[in-house]
Amino acid sequence: MKLATLKNHTRDGQLVIVSKDLTKYIAVPDISQTLQNALDNWDIISPLLIEVYNKLNTNTLNNSQIFEETNCESPLPRAYQWADGSAYLNHVELVRQARNASVPESFYQDPLMYQGGSDSFIGPRDDISLACESWGIDLEAEVAIITDDVPMGVTPANASKHIKLIMLVNDVSLRNLIPAELAKGFGFFQSKASSAFSPVCVTPDELNDSWKDTKVDLFLNVHLNNQAFGLTLASQDMTFGFDELVAHAAKSRPLITGTIIGSGTVSNKLDGGPGKKIEDGGRGYSCIAEIRMIETIKKKESLTEYMKFGDNVQISMNDKNGNSIFGLINQTVVKQEI
Amino acid sequence: MKLATLKNHTRDGQLVIVSKDLTKYIAVPDISQTLQNALDNWDIISPLLIEVYNKLNTNTLNNSQIFEETNCESPLPRAYQWADGSAYLNHVELVRQARNASVPESFYQDPLMYQGGSDSFIGPRDDISLACESWGIDLEAEVAIITDDVPMGVTPANASKHIKLIMLVNDVSLRNLIPAELAKGFGFFQSKASSAFSPVCVTPDELNDSWKDTKVDLFLNVHLNNQAFGLTLASQDMTFGFDELVAHAAKSRPLITGTIIGSGTVSNKLDGGPGKKIEDGGRGYSCIAEIRMIETIKKKESLTEYMKFGDNVQISMNDKNGNSIFGLINQTVVKQEI
Repeated sequence: MKLATLKNHTRDGQLVIVSKDLTKYIAVPDISQTLQNALDNWDIISPLLIEVYNKLNTNTLNNSQIFEETNCESPLPRAYQWADGSAYLNHVELVRQARNASVPESFYQDPLMYQGGSDSFIGPRDDISLACESWGIDLEAEVAIITDDVPMGVTPANASKHIKLIMLVNDVSLRNLIPAELAKGFGFFQSKASSAFSPVCVTPDELNDSWKDTKVDLFLNVHLNNQAFGLTLASQDMTFGFDELVAHAAKSRPLITGTIIGSGTVSNKLDGGPGKKIEDGGRGYSCIAEIRMIETIKKKESLTEYMKFGDNVQISMNDKNGNSIFGLINQTVVKQEI
Repeated sequence: MKLATLKNHTRDGQLVIVSKDLTKYIAVPDISQTLQNALDNWDIISPLLIEVYNKLNTNTLNNSQIFEETNCESPLPRAYQWADGSAYLNHVELVRQARNASVPESFYQDPLMYQGGSDSFIGPRDDISLACESWGIDLEAEVAIITDDVPMGVTPANASKHIKLIMLVNDVSLRNLIPAELAKGFGFFQSKASSAFSPVCVTPDELNDSWKDTKVDLFLNVHLNNQAFGLTLASQDMTFGFDELVAHAAKSRPLITGTIIGSGTVSNKLDGGPGKKIEDGGRGYSCIAEIRMIETIKKKESLTEYMKFGDNVQISMNDKNGNSIFGLINQTVVKQEI
């Protein structure tokens, strides 16, 4: 099943069911007005939604409408939790290598995860509005999942059953604010701007055999200013599956339905060396910081600049037949007047 | 105005208006079922609530009921944001002094703040249910505020207008999980259990002249196992007011209505030396970690133990006439069977 949330001048938007080919939608206010409400009662509501979804795909509904991704909010315009992992240790290894440090052994057993702000997501086609270019504006292309209620202390094996929806995310990071903030010891705050999620979120069965061991075995496509920037394989080099990320998050408290958990920046280690550029035959990058680290390692200085006002990023993922699964995140950085 | 949320087997509970003396309440489903809904439409709804509150206090309502704090959820049982400051730098200074380090000068200009989990708060009279005593279970008694919508880049002067409600919080911390987690660089996650807030939240006008420069000029009363543990003055040694904490949180993204911001553990520096015990004439502590730091500084070892299963903590605040403003947080630590 594919779901989206349309803008309707309310804080939580209008839940709609979207056809598999992303061309049509139908609102189902009699079943649920919002995605959070559907998640609050998922066992009862999801079978009703699936019934409509099947009719939508077989063209047996006469009141469907044309789906426009430009009208979308993030599937949850505001959420009760956004916890972002850093499951691709190649990314962490490059960060460390660029400053001649090694990755602690514990990082391979215990996931890295930070608590993100979940109150003010923006839409997948909304501008990234920020006051200063000098903050070092970077994209971070990731996969994310939404859980139902997860009990405290859940095992990874049981955690996998609580993964209800999958989507993409652009976790905008302000790179030049990070060093001072992390040095204070309390993690990210100002260095993470509002995130945007893909127009559409989907149930795991939509991915068929591309949903493997709670990883997505498909390529994450990133374009920067209409140039190919990254085409990394999301299942490769993901040290921890989403089952392990959910279990990590639930160690000392339960997770309430609608919790979003991110994979961290997708990053592949290739035989030809880490993070080779697409034109070199590698798979490229899911954030600018990584190409800057490669440049630092190889050329002793980072050449690629962070995003400026006017720069554009596009993030999407196709199935094995080349069809878009989640729709397109398409955002331009603009100056926020304070 | 005083508001609370009663347990009613729904995820967000039942918003009620509570009399100034905390003896009576009335539900107002025709105005708003939940506190979040009231905050979503605060400019329209709050005048309607105030009208009922005034009638409740003058005994002109014949359908009020007896208010029982034991039936309370936290005012927001789940929230879209919980951001906790660390505004009492005496606490930070003691942490550093205990390990022979100094506080960086920047800490006095730029607030410390971490992003907390906001999806699974527990009630003010609910047990603190955790799997392991060895995690180092500690209370943290704080003041917290709730905002309406705050624009990105707000100044402290304008931020103060967005503070709509005030309450207390027990920000339960798992001390023995903190060092390894902070060493990973991404801040707290597993080391923060579900927080509990006071039974009642109040509008700033309820504090009269005890709400000064966005600080609460009253004593925060903490009892541990029915023994006086702390009676710190919340306005004293608060390096940053809530106006500055809100502005800090909103630097690079807007805050959506219902955002909760905490003060951090209240901690007073007294002439007789930092954090003197109540029996020594000092004001005591708002967390166990602080008395352990004092012990380490004075006696080279920490003697007071963290909370064990069966231990109880009570947190409250009286007005200048000795009347409870927010009701009593009263929680016992119990073993969570996984």
